[in-house]
Amino acid sequence: MPETKVKKTEDFHEWYNEIVELADLCDKRYPIKGMNVWRPYGWKMMSFIDKAIRREMENTDHQEVYFPMCIPRSSFKKEEEHIEGFGSEVFWITHAGDNELEEPWLLRPTSETAMYPIFSLWIRSHGDLPLKTFQIVNTFRYETKQTRAFIRVREIHFFESHTCHVDFKDAERQIAENKEIAQRFMHDLCLPYLLHKRPEWDKFAGAFYTISIDVLMPSMRTLQLGSIHQYKDNFAKPYDITYETEKGDHAFCHQTTYGMSERILGALIGVHGDNKGLIIPPAIAPTQIVIIPIIFKGKEQQVIKVCSEVASTLQSKGYRVHTDNRDITPGNKYYTWELKGVPLRIEIGPRDVENKQCVFVSRDTSEKQSVPLSTIEPSVKKTLDALAQRLYQHAETLLHDHLHTITTIDEAKKYEGILELPWCGKEECALEIETILDGNTLGIPIEEKPCDHPCPVCQKKATTWMRYAKSY
Amino acid sequence: MPETKVKKTEDFHEWYNEIVELADLCDKRYPIKGMNVWRPYGWKMMSFIDKAIRREMENTDHQEVYFPMCIPRSSFKKEEEHIEGFGSEVFWITHAGDNELEEPWLLRPTSETAMYPIFSLWIRSHGDLPLKTFQIVNTFRYETKQTRAFIRVREIHFFESHTCHVDFKDAERQIAENKEIAQRFMHDLCLPYLLHKRPEWDKFAGAFYTISIDVLMPSMRTLQLGSIHQYKDNFAKPYDITYETEKGDHAFCHQTTYGMSERILGALIGVHGDNKGLIIPPAIAPTQIVIIPIIFKGKEQQVIKVCSEVASTLQSKGYRVHTDNRDITPGNKYYTWELKGVPLRIEIGPRDVENKQCVFVSRDTSEKQSVPLSTIEPSVKKTLDALAQRLYQHAETLLHDHLHTITTIDEAKKYEGILELPWCGKEECALEIETILDGNTLGIPIEEKPCDHPCPVCQKKATTWMRYAKSY
Repeated sequence: MPETKVKKTEDFHEWYNEIVELADLCDKRYPIKGMNVWRPYGWKMMSFIDKAIRREMENTDHQEVYFPMCIPRSSFKKEEEHIEGFGSEVFWITHAGDNELEEPWLLRPTSETAMYPIFSLWIRSHGDLPLKTFQIVNTFRYETKQTRAFIRVREIHFFESHTCHVDFKDAERQIAENKEIAQRFMHDLCLPYLLHKRPEWDKFAGAFYTISIDVLMPSMRTLQLGSIHQYKDNFAKPYDITYETEKGDHAFCHQTTYGMSERILGALIGVHGDNKGLIIPPAIAPTQIVIIPIIFKGKEQQVIKVCSEVASTLQSKGYRVHTDNRDITPGNKYYTWELKGVPLRIEIGPRDVENKQCVFVSRDTSEKQSVPLSTIEPSVKKTLDALAQRLYQHAETLLHDHLHTITTIDEAKKYEGILELPWCGKEECALEIETILDGNTLGIPIEEKPCDHPCPVCQKKATTWMRYAKSY
Repeated sequence: MPETKVKKTEDFHEWYNEIVELADLCDKRYPIKGMNVWRPYGWKMMSFIDKAIRREMENTDHQEVYFPMCIPRSSFKKEEEHIEGFGSEVFWITHAGDNELEEPWLLRPTSETAMYPIFSLWIRSHGDLPLKTFQIVNTFRYETKQTRAFIRVREIHFFESHTCHVDFKDAERQIAENKEIAQRFMHDLCLPYLLHKRPEWDKFAGAFYTISIDVLMPSMRTLQLGSIHQYKDNFAKPYDITYETEKGDHAFCHQTTYGMSERILGALIGVHGDNKGLIIPPAIAPTQIVIIPIIFKGKEQQVIKVCSEVASTLQSKGYRVHTDNRDITPGNKYYTWELKGVPLRIEIGPRDVENKQCVFVSRDTSEKQSVPLSTIEPSVKKTLDALAQRLYQHAETLLHDHLHTITTIDEAKKYEGILELPWCGKEECALEIETILDGNTLGIPIEEKPCDHPCPVCQKKATTWMRYAKSY
């Protein structure tokens, strides 16, 4: 079977770029840097990821909304830290036709400042709370660093949930729910991840605290897929989001958000793919099963009939099945669907028809397995589950093998991946380590485990562990 | 049951505004005029409309893509008529952070100028044709007229298909397919419509010809929901979209587009709604059936059990069913779901349980009907089909009764709605009639019927009929 020109293990980034192009995911030749064209298969994959998020949102009583893309400067400027954090990263609309706008608008970098003036109108009493909303939209950031498909772009496909609560405690319950959502969702993607409480100087502009969702890519760099934020009443105050309590007082809402971007797709490509192409986790694969009729002259009719029966049977059980009836060789068909990452291939030829069986080929192992047609359904389930399990295990091994808990800077220099070091709590010590490692502070492990070692920089007593990595 | 403060027949526009707000469709208090917030139910309705379009696209082998929202000025300027037509209506991005962009970008008013430079790269040979793509995105137009929810806005939810073909004849085949898609889609919406070939001076900027899809609103004004365009090679030339023919020559592609906007939702509200709220055609209703348990003390268990069984039965047949178990009176439940336009309500009380039956209430007629539980499935199908039929018939009567074929200007002044008058082919005569009627030229009826009357303005021989109406 043809493989990528560049091997994944030899040059990860070149391999990534090649796959993105070969698998029909996006076109980077659009005349604005970092604004790429989503090609049909890339957009389809993203739509299935969106569907998985929508399902989670529906199951947790979030309602989908859509807020305008343009935000007036005056709305944006209400929360001071927020504009300080985002001001240099936004695109400004200044003219309409030949007229200058009275007030410039910006393209949403995220939607707090579009939503919260309206939340202030929607929420009147405690009966309106919690308010749980989400939207899936494109956001815009003026990235000046090197762009990379799905990983660093200027028009970003983005999921964001925004919730309002009676108090901090209820907002904390939402944070807990958001973590559960992340767990189920990432499990569907077969992606192990780490949660980090971001350090004060690197949290989301305006947040009380920020939890990042990080995965490790095979390049040994971490990729932040999303974040969960506790805002407390930091935004409710400037945007005047208040409610009447049961006692008749007025109180500010406490808020949370949860955001994830198209980087999810970047992680799927990078973590699971191989030299033949993508490997898509069954839960979100646009096509889960491809059926390939192996046709020899004279036996076409029976083979096509059995393929069609198998397809119907599996579709009726809710599987997403495609039968490739193109007039090309089976080998060319294998190539297409391996590249596109379809988890299970079923081959059916004249001898299989005679023997009332078919052949399963798992995308990740290329292992062949004869399966009686009479047990095809349970075999499909078993095979897809096993593949998902292997994808997860493979990624888990990558992560586990490159997460190093160490206590000195000398040790740190020996390892690639994610480094966990004692930390005294001072910004300058963490920044010093960033410089030495030429990496970034990820944050404090959310599991909060005790640390009895001194800070490797100032040697004072460490209060916790801090993680560092080179990151995208 | 409560009704709208304003009656539909008394003040259509006030009624429309009231419904839009009461039914939780959109919030017009966003601080930019004409950019409204989609509230959960409005967004859900739009999503079901989008689903119906996607289904049509899938069945006709169109592939979904997503092109960037920002278009560089230089790409936009390549087709001269196009920029002349749209130049005064676009929003310009001039700055990123504190920097002025080297070249300003505009927000897409429609996507020809974003897509066609890339199509020029995608299409190499006749084997790449036809190329059939579509996207569902938001577009932006600097509307200066009075805005109106879903009907005239500045951020517009928009469907657009773009196709490329070997020649004019194949593009004409696509136009024919687009008309068939419109027919099936509009049938699902229970919306009768008219197709008009727009006059030369009012066609889409850059098109060879434009067909508009118009409906008549109860205000007696027409609403253009979308259009189908034949571009010939008008865009292929400036954007250099060529292909190698079977003979090895190079030729320009011929192109078509088909666009429809959120005005579809505006039409659904306006044409089908009544003083109790929305009436949503079953094919696109987010909830097709609402089940209301009628509960008296002591009999809760059985009623709830039967409701749940009925819901399961209907869901397993693919119906979208909601059971309203809220702790409020049945009357309040009726009010909610009538407002939201759910086509069929099923009431089940203790006596119904005893008699193994339930009560159907159709949203449009409020007619009650006892249905044995044993025949519930076929009864649901029959009842929803009949409701759809009535919605269509009702709208068809409105359109038919207000489409007047006349031959003189004096007659024209007597009628409301759509006027069909003989036309000699001269722009000045049509514009004269526009002025007299204080209306707009819709275009030539697509059915092209012969006309033996003189032009009512210049009295010269008319070559065809031309339609006029007040329009949104």
